[in-house]
This record gives sequence, structure tokens and C-alpha cells, in this order.
Amino acid sequence: MLDLDAIYQNADPVFKSLGAKIILLEPGRAVIEIPYKEDITRRGNVLHGGIIMTAIDIAGGLATLTVNDGIDQVTQELKINFLEPMYKGPFRVEGKVVRKGSTIVVVQIEFRDADGKLGAIALGSWFILRRKVQNNDENKKA
Amino acid sequence: MLDLDAIYQNADPVFKSLGAKIILLEPGRAVIEIPYKEDITRRGNVLHGGIIMTAIDIAGGLATLTVNDGIDQVTQELKINFLEPMYKGPFRVEGKVVRKGSTIVVVQIEFRDADGKLGAIALGSWFILRRKVQNNDENKKA
Amino acid sequence: MLDLDAIYQNADPVFKSLGAKIILLEPGRAVIEIPYKEDITRRGNVLHGGIIMTAIDIAGGLATLTVNDGIDQVTQELKINFLEPMYKGPFRVEGKVVRKGSTIVVVQIEFRDADGKLGAIALGSWFILRRKVQNNDENKKA
Amino acid sequence: MLDLDAIYQNADPVFKSLGAKIILLEPGRAVIEIPYKEDITRRGNVLHGGIIMTAIDIAGGLATLTVNDGIDQVTQELKINFLEPMYKGPFRVEGKVVRKGSTIVVVQIEFRDADGKLGAIALGSWFILRRKVQNNDENKKA
Repeated sequence: MLDLDAIYQNADPVFKSLGAKIILLEPGRAVIEIPYKEDITRRGNVLHGGIIMTAIDIAGGLATLTVNDGIDQVTQELKINFLEPMYKGPFRVEGKVVRKGSTIVVVQIEFRDADGKLGAIALGSWFILRRKVQNNDENKKA
Repeated sequence: MLDLDAIYQNADPVFKSLGAKIILLEPGRAVIEIPYKEDITRRGNVLHGGIIMTAIDIAGGLATLTVNDGIDQVTQELKINFLEPMYKGPFRVEGKVVRKGSTIVVVQIEFRDADGKLGAIALGSWFILRRKVQNNDENKKA
Repeated sequence: MLDLDAIYQNADPVFKSLGAKIILLEPGRAVIEIPYKEDITRRGNVLHGGIIMTAIDIAGGLATLTVNDGIDQVTQELKINFLEPMYKGPFRVEGKVVRKGSTIVVVQIEFRDADGKLGAIALGSWFILRRKVQNNDENKKA
Repeated sequence: MLDLDAIYQNADPVFKSLGAKIILLEPGRAVIEIPYKEDITRRGNVLHGGIIMTAIDIAGGLATLTVNDGIDQVTQELKINFLEPMYKGPFRVEGKVVRKGSTIVVVQIEFRDADGKLGAIALGSWFILRRKVQNNDENKKA
């Protein structure tokens, strides 16, 4: 059911530019890894908050994908607490499905550094799309 | 008080890689603009959610900077509702300070496309740092 | 379209126990008022956070009701920033619809004291139910 | 260090009106129980969302109290995903400290029914107060 090849092929440019790798995909759970790179840091050489959120969005989306019985999905809402500055990569980001509804999937996501220290924790909702739409206004009807 | 030059000089690599520009900075308010580029999109050529969050984090941080009477700041928490797929740039992201405390600054942020259509709305807290710290563990004590 | 009588008649016991009143209902907007009472305070005689959230949930739900073209609705997610201690009633809580989709309605809510001072700000999503369900498991399928 | 008696004595009227009981308090963790009562329900006899949030705020606050080395605390921000309608009490609400900083304590909270089914999940921040203030404007300076 999970077509890893298709997932990799369709990996978006943002995923690729982060150098992200999928470490684990199983029903209700996804783990990705991203390396430390200077061009994704901010003052103090700590990881940029936007990058942490991007990685969290990707891991949450992949966890949703493992239980998605529709045809596509979009992030509906995401909320993040930043806990510690992160500078020791590679970083691991794990998404776990908390509840799978027919329309909404709620996922909890944890962002950790190479030592396993928790850098950020998040809760988000993904919306399952069930109908084909003609143009790229697809998310509009959610 | 606001040293635009310093802000630009210190602009992080993520800010630069987005091609972001500061459009307005006044006490309690910041507006940035980012161009549409294919390498920050996902399926359907809509803007990647992680990029929207990154731009929101940057605009909220700049709005905080306009009222920051400490020496530095970090994003403490951020929550975002995605409303519409965004594909018509340049995009405008505006942060407005809702409340300035001595430690916490709460900011509301709106992300709009070139037509002014609202694509995402967010609420976040920024933590004002008041003491110098020696290493890059600076955020740790927040 | 808005049947105020029905709304009042169906007002839940929590709404009644707060002594809440509906001040305004118009498409996309709802304002309620709640009086200050000692039994909804905490230490320092400030309003209890749970009461603030309850009032915010009610005002957001009423704003959603003004645009709901389905048969019922449930709160899907809610996030709140507490800004100031609140002790000067009556309090006004206003919900404004930010975006109405066919399934999800996003609402912003503000909680103010008798002087108009902002005590809390919130963003939430309400889920529109379109099908009758037999039992009280209705929300389950959202 | 934890003075249960004082906690009970100081229990706010909202805590009492819910019929809440503290089941467990240990460093970094708190569990409370609240009974099902008709006067805290809404349509369909399911628990009112405001009550769920109130219970979550209380459990998160108690978890924070177990690690609070200051003199008081306030809820700074709270975000909740509602997962299932809840009608089978008594309900258990558990708060776990995710990170204890010197100023901010981040807590995750889970709300479950008598069968252990997860009804709501939340993430919040509590602000530790360290200085005595004269009046009930105490939270203002956070």
C-alpha cells in the first residue's frame, strides 16, 4: 500500500534541499532524518525555526500518508513548542498518528538532535482529500 | 532604534535563500515580501507549508524585534491555520504585536498572496532574552 | 436563517451557568457577554482560565453557526494565548470567521474586559457535520 | 515539597464545582479525575468542550506545580485537539511536563474517558512567577 518509490520520486524540492531521508514508515508512524548544514541555521549556529517547522510538517505529513485512504492530503493546522536550540545533527523527526478520522488525521511530532534531546514538540491536523479536482485549487474546498 | 542595516546584514541564510525583502518595520509591526519560486513549492505547484511557516516565523520575529528592549529573542511557540493554497506571488507576510510583556511578546501573523487573499493565519509567542550567555546554549535557559 | 429563539432554547447548561448573553449575531460574527462572578475566579480573584476558554469556545461556535450550512458542528481544535489577568466584568467575547470552507470553519476570537482591554486571543477550527447520525457517537466520524 | 493539603485548600471554585479529585502528583506529572454530570454536557449529552479545556488547564497547571521552584504560575498558552465525544465518566486527565525551563514549563495533557479512550490531547506553556506583586495585576508583567 505504501509505495516508497513513489513517495521518494514525488519528494518535493524542499524535502530534497534539506537532504532529508525517510528512515521508517509503518502504519501510523514516520521517521525522517535531516543533516546539520550551515545554510539552515540562524544566529548562534542553531537550526532555524522555519527549518524545524518544515521538517515537522514533512514528518507529520508522512505519518498521515501511512493511514490515508483517500487520494491526497493537506496540512490543515500545526502548532509547535520550541524547547531547546538544536545544533547537533543529524536530527530525527518522528510523527505518530494520534487519531485517524475519515476526514481529519491528528498527529503528534517530536524533533530530536543526534543525542536524542527533544528540541521541539508539535500537534497538527491533516485533511484527507477524497475527490479529484481539476486545477491546483484542490485544497480550496477543504 | 531599529538598525535596518544591521538587520539586513544579520539576515540569516534562510531569509536570504527565500529572496525575502523587508517592506515595512514600525513599532509593533513588520511586513516582508517573498517571491514565488518553483523550488519552494509542492505537488500542484502550490507553496510548500514549511515555507509558509518559515516566512511567518520571520515576520513574527521582525515584529517582535521592533518592540524588543532586551538583547536577543527566540520563538517560543507558534500555531498556524492553513486556509488556502498559495501560488500567486509575490507573497506578503505581516506580523502585528498583540501584546508586549517584559518577557513574552505575542504576535499575530497573516500570510497573503499577490491579490491579498489570506493563505494562512498564525499566533505565536516570542521570548525576550535579557542576559548575555557565553555559548550557543543561549536559548536553553528561557 | 438564524433562529435566535432556537439558539437560546438549546443553550447548554454551561452557557446558562455562566450567565452568558448573546449580544450580536450576524453572518460571520458573534459577540457574547458574561458577567463577573466570584465562583468562576481563581487565586487573586482573576477569572479562571478554564472559564475564559469556555467563553471563547462558545463565541467561536456561535460565529461558526452563523455560516453553518450543514446540520450540526463540533469544535475540532482551539488554541489560546492568555494576555492579561481579567477581573473587570462584564466581559465581551467576539468570534469572527476567518475562512468558511465546506467542512472546516476557522474563527478568531478575542476576550475583553469591561474597559475593552484584551485578555486572551484565540484561533480555532470548527467542523461542519452534514449527515444525521443515530446515536451520540455523531462526532466520531469527523 | 508538594503540600497536598495546601493545594486542596486553595483549590479554586471551578475545580470544586467540577467535583475534581487529584489522583496522582509526582515530579513532572499530575492526574485528576472528574465525574460525569449532566450540567457539564452539551447537545447529545457529550461533555462540553469548555469543561474538557478547563480540566486540561487544571491538570497541566498541577503538573507544572510539581516542578515549580518559583512562587506562583499562570497559564501562558494552551492548544487542544478534540478527538472523540466524551460521555463515559469518570474522566481522567493527565499532565506530563515535557520541558522545565527557569521561566517556561511546557506540558502535554491527555483527556480520557472511563475506558481509557483518548478524547482530547493538548500542549501548553505555563509561566513561572518569581516575584511577589502587590495587587492582582500580578500576571501583567509576564
